[in-house]
Amino acid sequence: MATGSRRDIIGGLGAGLMLASVGSGVSAASARKIGYAIVGLGSYATRQIMPNFAGCEHAHIAALVSGTPAKLENFGDQYGVPKTHRYSYADFDRIRDNPDIDAVYIILPNSLHAEYAIRAAKAGKHVMCEKPMATSVADCQAMIAACRQAGKKLMIGYRSRFEPYNRLAIDLARSGHVGPTRLITAEHGFPIKPDQWRLDKPLSGGGSMMDIGIYSLNAARYLTGEEPVEVSAVESTDRSDPRFRTVEDRISFLLRFPSGIVADCISSYSSGHNSYRINGTQGWIGMEPATPYAGQSMTIRKDGVTAPRTLPPAGKTQFAGQLDHFAECILTGKTPIVPGEEGLADLRVIEAIYQSAAQGRSVRIGA
Amino acid sequence: MATGSRRDIIGGLGAGLMLASVGSGVSAASARKIGYAIVGLGSYATRQIMPNFAGCEHAHIAALVSGTPAKLENFGDQYGVPKTHRYSYADFDRIRDNPDIDAVYIILPNSLHAEYAIRAAKAGKHVMCEKPMATSVADCQAMIAACRQAGKKLMIGYRSRFEPYNRLAIDLARSGHVGPTRLITAEHGFPIKPDQWRLDKPLSGGGSMMDIGIYSLNAARYLTGEEPVEVSAVESTDRSDPRFRTVEDRISFLLRFPSGIVADCISSYSSGHNSYRINGTQGWIGMEPATPYAGQSMTIRKDGVTAPRTLPPAGKTQFAGQLDHFAECILTGKTPIVPGEEGLADLRVIEAIYQSAAQGRSVRIGA
Repeated sequence: MATGSRRDIIGGLGAGLMLASVGSGVSAASARKIGYAIVGLGSYATRQIMPNFAGCEHAHIAALVSGTPAKLENFGDQYGVPKTHRYSYADFDRIRDNPDIDAVYIILPNSLHAEYAIRAAKAGKHVMCEKPMATSVADCQAMIAACRQAGKKLMIGYRSRFEPYNRLAIDLARSGHVGPTRLITAEHGFPIKPDQWRLDKPLSGGGSMMDIGIYSLNAARYLTGEEPVEVSAVESTDRSDPRFRTVEDRISFLLRFPSGIVADCISSYSSGHNSYRINGTQGWIGMEPATPYAGQSMTIRKDGVTAPRTLPPAGKTQFAGQLDHFAECILTGKTPIVPGEEGLADLRVIEAIYQSAAQGRSVRIGA
Repeated sequence: MATGSRRDIIGGLGAGLMLASVGSGVSAASARKIGYAIVGLGSYATRQIMPNFAGCEHAHIAALVSGTPAKLENFGDQYGVPKTHRYSYADFDRIRDNPDIDAVYIILPNSLHAEYAIRAAKAGKHVMCEKPMATSVADCQAMIAACRQAGKKLMIGYRSRFEPYNRLAIDLARSGHVGPTRLITAEHGFPIKPDQWRLDKPLSGGGSMMDIGIYSLNAARYLTGEEPVEVSAVESTDRSDPRFRTVEDRISFLLRFPSGIVADCISSYSSGHNSYRINGTQGWIGMEPATPYAGQSMTIRKDGVTAPRTLPPAGKTQFAGQLDHFAECILTGKTPIVPGEEGLADLRVIEAIYQSAAQGRSVRIGA
C-alpha cells in the first residue's frame, strides 16, 4: 500500500493490513527463487506474464509446457529454459521428476484448468491458476481437494489484488471513506474478435461472464468484503452473430450482499467497459479504467467535490506482485490472499448468474 | 437542436427531427400567451418553474392554487397575479369560470396528480402534470381518458426532453454514433432528507423509484426509443432507517428491450447518482451530470479516443422550453412530445419493477 494513502484509512482495516503485508515476509538472505513452470504459451502467458518475471524478487521461469514445439523452442531460448525443462502436454506428468519446478502457472483454456491443476498437485507442485479457476463449482472443489491432499498451495490469478489503485479502493470502500457503501457498479466488456477458443463453449465454459465479467463480479466481492446472497441476471445475446453460437454476449447481474449493499454489474462481449464505482452516502470512489494491464485511474467525489486521486509509481507491476506473492507463500508457509476458495466463490456466483438468467428469477446463493 | 451537432446525425432521424421542431410553429404575429394556473406552490414550483416563465415566449402565469393563504399572497404579489386569480383547493373547480386560465400545471404530491388533472380537464383546462404522472397505471389511464373526453391536451413534465444535451444524446444514440447501442446504464439518486411528503407513501406512492429513479427509466426509454419487454429488479431498503418506514430506498433494475439492448438502471435515496451512458459497439456516449437543473456534461469515447462534447449556450432553459412547448401545442393543435401516454408508459414499467422486486422474478411487460 502506498504511504500516501494511510491518512484515508480510518477503520475496518483487516483487509488493508493483510494487503499491506504483500511483498514482505521473505528475508533476502534466506530467499531462493521459486521456479515456475508456465503451462500454456498463449498471448496472456507470453505477452503479460512471462516478461514480468524480470521484475520479480522471488520467482523465475523454470520450465515451459506447450503443445507447440516451435513455441517451446522460441520461448525456451528467449527465457533461457534448458531443453530438459520444456514439456509437451503428453509429457506433463514428468514435471514430478524435476526439482527445479516448485509451482505451475496454468494459463490454458478454462475447461482445462481443473485437469492440469489436479495433475500438477499429484506431481507434487504448487498451483497458480488463471481465472476463471474452472468452469464449474465441482471442478473448483476437486482442485482444492487435490491441492490439499498433496499438501500444496493453490492460488488464482486475480492480478488486480496486487495493483495499488485497486488495493487503495478496497481500503477506502471498506473504511467508509465516502460513507457506508450503498451501491456498487462494476462494468467490464470489450467487442470480441471472432475465431478464438473463448467463443467455443467446450473450451471456455461460457461467454463474456467467464472471461471478462468475472472482473465485475470479483470487484463487487473484494470491494465489499462480503459474499452475495442473491442474484438476478438478464442475458442478451444475438445468436445470429457467428461469434455467439455457443456462448453468451452480455449478462447484466444484480448482487445483493448481506449488509444491504447492491452491486449492479455488467459483462459484455460487444461493447467496451472497464470501470467500477463505490457509491457511499457521502460521495463515490470511481475507477476508470479499473482493471487494465496498466494505467488505472481513480476519481473521488466527496462532499460535493470531485477530484482525481493519484498514487506514486508502483515499485512492482501487478503481474510481478502476484508471482512474488505466491512465491512468498510457498517460501514462508502463508496462505495466498486469493486462494482456491476465492476462485470457488466466484464460480459459485457465476453458476447462480447463469441459472438466474436462464430461469428468469432471482437465485439465492449459499442457501 | 444545436447546429453544431448536425454533423453527427447520420441516420435514424425520426426523433431528432421531431425534437428539432420544438420551439417553432407559432407565428409571432398571431400568438397570444397561454395562461397557466400553477397548482401547488412547493419548492419545485416556486424555485424552478415559476421563475422560468420570464424566459417563455408563449406562456405566462395566469393564476395560482395553494392551500396556504400566505403563499398565495406572497407569490401572487411577486408575479402580479390578481387576487381574483388566486385559488384554494376548495375553490379549485372555479377555475372553470376564469377564461384567463388556458392550462394548469400540477406540481402536487404524486398521489394527488390524478384527482387534480381530472378536475382540471372537467373544468375545461389543458393539463400539464409533473412526473410521475400518477401513482398507478389505472390513474394514468383515467387522466388520459378525462382529458380526451374534455378535448383538452395532456403533457407530462419530462423537462430533460427540452434540454439540448439530452436531445443530442438521443440523436447520437439512435443514429448509431458509437455503433449500435448494446447496453445503457442510467443512475439517479441522492441522500434524501427526512420529514417530507416524498417519504410518506400515501402521498408519494413509492420511494426513490417514483421520485428520482424515474429519470433512469425515462432515459433508458428515450435513448432507445423502445419500450422494455422485461424487467428484473432488486430492492434494498433499511427499514430501521426512519426515512424508509413506508417507502423504498434503493431499487436496481434491468430492462430488456425488443432490439436486445439491456439497460442497467439505479434508483437511490441514500447515495448520489446523476448519469447515464450509452454503450455502443464502437464506444460510448456519457452524460454526467445527465439531468440536473443546469450544467449537463457530455463525454464521448469513440474508436479509442475520449473527449468532452460541448454545445453552445442554449437560448432557452429546459423549463422555459417545456412551458413554451405545451403552449405551442395548445395554440397550434400539435400533440406534445411527452403526452400522457409517455407518463403511462413509465408507470407501466414502474409497476413491473415493484412487482419484480417483490416477487424475486423477472416480469414481462405488455404481455
